[in-house]
Amino acid sequence: MTATTTTAWLDELTAALGADGVLTDPDVTASYARDQAMFTEAGTPGAVVFPRSTDEVAAVMRVASRHGVPVVPRGAGSGLVGACNAVDGGITMVMTRMDAVLEVSSADRLAVVQPGVVSKTLRDAVRGAGLFYPPDPASYDWCTLGGNLAMNSGGLCCVKYGVTTDYVLGLEVVLADGRVLRTGRRTVKGVAGYDLTRLFVGSEGTLGVITEATLALRPVPHPPSTLVATFATSAQTGQVVESVVTSGLMPSMLEVMDRTCIRAVDDLLRADLDRDAQAMVIAQSDAGGAVAAEEIAALTRLCEEAGADLVHSTDDPAEGDLLLTARRMALPALERLGSSLLLDDVAVPRSRVATFIDGCDAIAADSGLVVGVVGHAGDGNMHPTVVFDGADPDQRARAHAAFDAILELGLSLGGTITGEHGIGVLKADWLERELGAVSLDVHRSIKDALDPAGLLNPGKVLRRH
Amino acid sequence: MTATTTTAWLDELTAALGADGVLTDPDVTASYARDQAMFTEAGTPGAVVFPRSTDEVAAVMRVASRHGVPVVPRGAGSGLVGACNAVDGGITMVMTRMDAVLEVSSADRLAVVQPGVVSKTLRDAVRGAGLFYPPDPASYDWCTLGGNLAMNSGGLCCVKYGVTTDYVLGLEVVLADGRVLRTGRRTVKGVAGYDLTRLFVGSEGTLGVITEATLALRPVPHPPSTLVATFATSAQTGQVVESVVTSGLMPSMLEVMDRTCIRAVDDLLRADLDRDAQAMVIAQSDAGGAVAAEEIAALTRLCEEAGADLVHSTDDPAEGDLLLTARRMALPALERLGSSLLLDDVAVPRSRVATFIDGCDAIAADSGLVVGVVGHAGDGNMHPTVVFDGADPDQRARAHAAFDAILELGLSLGGTITGEHGIGVLKADWLERELGAVSLDVHRSIKDALDPAGLLNPGKVLRRH
Repeated sequence: MTATTTTAWLDELTAALGADGVLTDPDVTASYARDQAMFTEAGTPGAVVFPRSTDEVAAVMRVASRHGVPVVPRGAGSGLVGACNAVDGGITMVMTRMDAVLEVSSADRLAVVQPGVVSKTLRDAVRGAGLFYPPDPASYDWCTLGGNLAMNSGGLCCVKYGVTTDYVLGLEVVLADGRVLRTGRRTVKGVAGYDLTRLFVGSEGTLGVITEATLALRPVPHPPSTLVATFATSAQTGQVVESVVTSGLMPSMLEVMDRTCIRAVDDLLRADLDRDAQAMVIAQSDAGGAVAAEEIAALTRLCEEAGADLVHSTDDPAEGDLLLTARRMALPALERLGSSLLLDDVAVPRSRVATFIDGCDAIAADSGLVVGVVGHAGDGNMHPTVVFDGADPDQRARAHAAFDAILELGLSLGGTITGEHGIGVLKADWLERELGAVSLDVHRSIKDALDPAGLLNPGKVLRRH
Repeated sequence: MTATTTTAWLDELTAALGADGVLTDPDVTASYARDQAMFTEAGTPGAVVFPRSTDEVAAVMRVASRHGVPVVPRGAGSGLVGACNAVDGGITMVMTRMDAVLEVSSADRLAVVQPGVVSKTLRDAVRGAGLFYPPDPASYDWCTLGGNLAMNSGGLCCVKYGVTTDYVLGLEVVLADGRVLRTGRRTVKGVAGYDLTRLFVGSEGTLGVITEATLALRPVPHPPSTLVATFATSAQTGQVVESVVTSGLMPSMLEVMDRTCIRAVDDLLRADLDRDAQAMVIAQSDAGGAVAAEEIAALTRLCEEAGADLVHSTDDPAEGDLLLTARRMALPALERLGSSLLLDDVAVPRSRVATFIDGCDAIAADSGLVVGVVGHAGDGNMHPTVVFDGADPDQRARAHAAFDAILELGLSLGGTITGEHGIGVLKADWLERELGAVSLDVHRSIKDALDPAGLLNPGKVLRRH
């Protein structure tokens, strides 16, 4: 790309968005070059733009199409797979100025939002109306809904409430050529045409730029009752998961963490955790009243049957929140153990959680590195996390090998390489391994149909070819 | 198409499927020419084939691709929009021989099925394991899961449990060129690549032929408690819906029927229904025990607040089932009123149900025809049904005009032309009205990407162009 043409498209962008909507100072644009994923490739953006409206997004896409400039849409940059890493000389489009909650309707139990709304902001905005937006990725107090939609984010709620895509009724999307598409509708049911809504959700900005979403809401659940149980082996927590599923229980949370995580958290929080326990289960019921008491009693029984050393439960939400803090702090605590983390995100069928946890222990032993296992065991989505010194080339090589071995293990158990974090650039090489050649070919056909020039977030999900 | 080439592809089909897998006798093939939708165009199949395996489906598609012959996949033919109506001289592919429940897993709460399994068969097959497959279209005791998947079927359960697509974890699909694609996975969560699973669900056989599905299951709910309430105006039932939604209640069923339906059912069943009531609400709670009692009490209060003449409830499942019979028999009862029915399937935002019911009454008055209003009011999906003498050209014209006016009304209220029946040929002309030109263009791009020769169920969803 020559300086002349760059000047041409920069001028057009500035004409469309105004001077304060287009940044090119490399010291500033560098801070928009990547998300939270370490060890992923990222380019240097030629410009970072901040549209205020769908029209401005469409204008950016028209300029980009006319000049063949790649566009990387992004929100807060809380992602974990490099899905919004910049492309060299391309446009990085930051959606955070489009941050309005446009509507909250109790009568239709829905909200209409712009992509730059922070997830927690929507939660808080609907709570007054007695409504609840479930998806709760760990970053929910700073990540944006646009990012959640692009990545189909999950969280701790998924075991009972599902993931982001389960709450999307309709979208407004700007296509690669600048046309504005509306998908879906305001109704709960609707089967007119293909399910384009869910095609865009989770497509990581490679098919279009989401500029508005109509989201289904639920009634606010009861304050949770909470249970914590400790075990002498990690595999026992897998048994708990399997017996919970088989017995038909529907807890609103079912998390596990292993001894590495327990000790790291205890070091950080001085929380008086059982440092000798090999693993811990944290579960909640938000069914309220007698039903919650029954669910917690049933969960207690299943933990005891799996051989728990200790089971403690409370219906005090404040105490429950304290117990949950241990789980929420697992990753920050692991971060203190080494200079670097490689965070995996394998989901396995729920019957294979025990086997998976055992396998991660074996991989840790082989690698000679610490692997902290923490995750949403209730839905099989685990985050084994390799802890290492990123400045040491040998440790780095072993860490990546362990990371890959965990993916391999997940696939061998009928699982997926990503339960909720996405592909981005981090796992693009792994995608064909999971999907196979036919699926990859169908992916490319759809990408080519919607973005024939390959301008939208190139190199993410699908490697350039 | 010349006789010679027809002979050529027929020979190849017979070689692939055996003589008993390929029918060409016009007296026999005629019975596979259409589904249950009256007044829809249907051709005469050149051959009807009955594959027994994915390999045979792939063989059929390879023959069809080689010779440019259109293929219409179908199940039991219970559809209501002509989505499996035959194409003149084409291949109609009947999936009913692929009718195995391949797996039921309690530990992973899922089932793996072939497309020819009857919906009720799966329900019964998983019940022994304490599991529940919710989607319950009215035809569930004879429709097939392949058809449910192709149409994204709903039913009475949707108000609490959602529709077919909410239960699909993964698919095996034979593409237009005979390649076999696997989508999704056995895990509850997974975001590796685009959501192809939900792109195929509801695509009405226009993008591929579903040959296997991995379906999520739920624990069996409690036996239902049932409430029936009658009202002096139809609009009061809309008020009930709105107050149920606003108050955060989650009944497992919330149906309405109007006086036309009540009287028709009473004529048919001699059920001692209140013939003077203008409308009736039937609701259920499957929460069990004290929670169900609370839900039914809350529903009773909301019905009374909306001005119900009578509210009756029972926690006896057998009595509840009797009360529900009135709702289930509404369409057969309407059928006895005239020789023909035009069954609409509009879904509106739940806040607009009252307005929609009033509008249907006005359309009935204008048309001088009977319009029975029945539907899944709890999710806004209504089935106003025009009753007329199909042999009378004037009545027929007025009936079609009323049918169209109801679609128009639905769209004007922010609704959709189809909540659960689909587009097929019946509503293909209406699709662009709802979706707009950009969406239709994106639909065509995706169709062209997956089926460039346009062989899969041509003319359904998208008109030929």
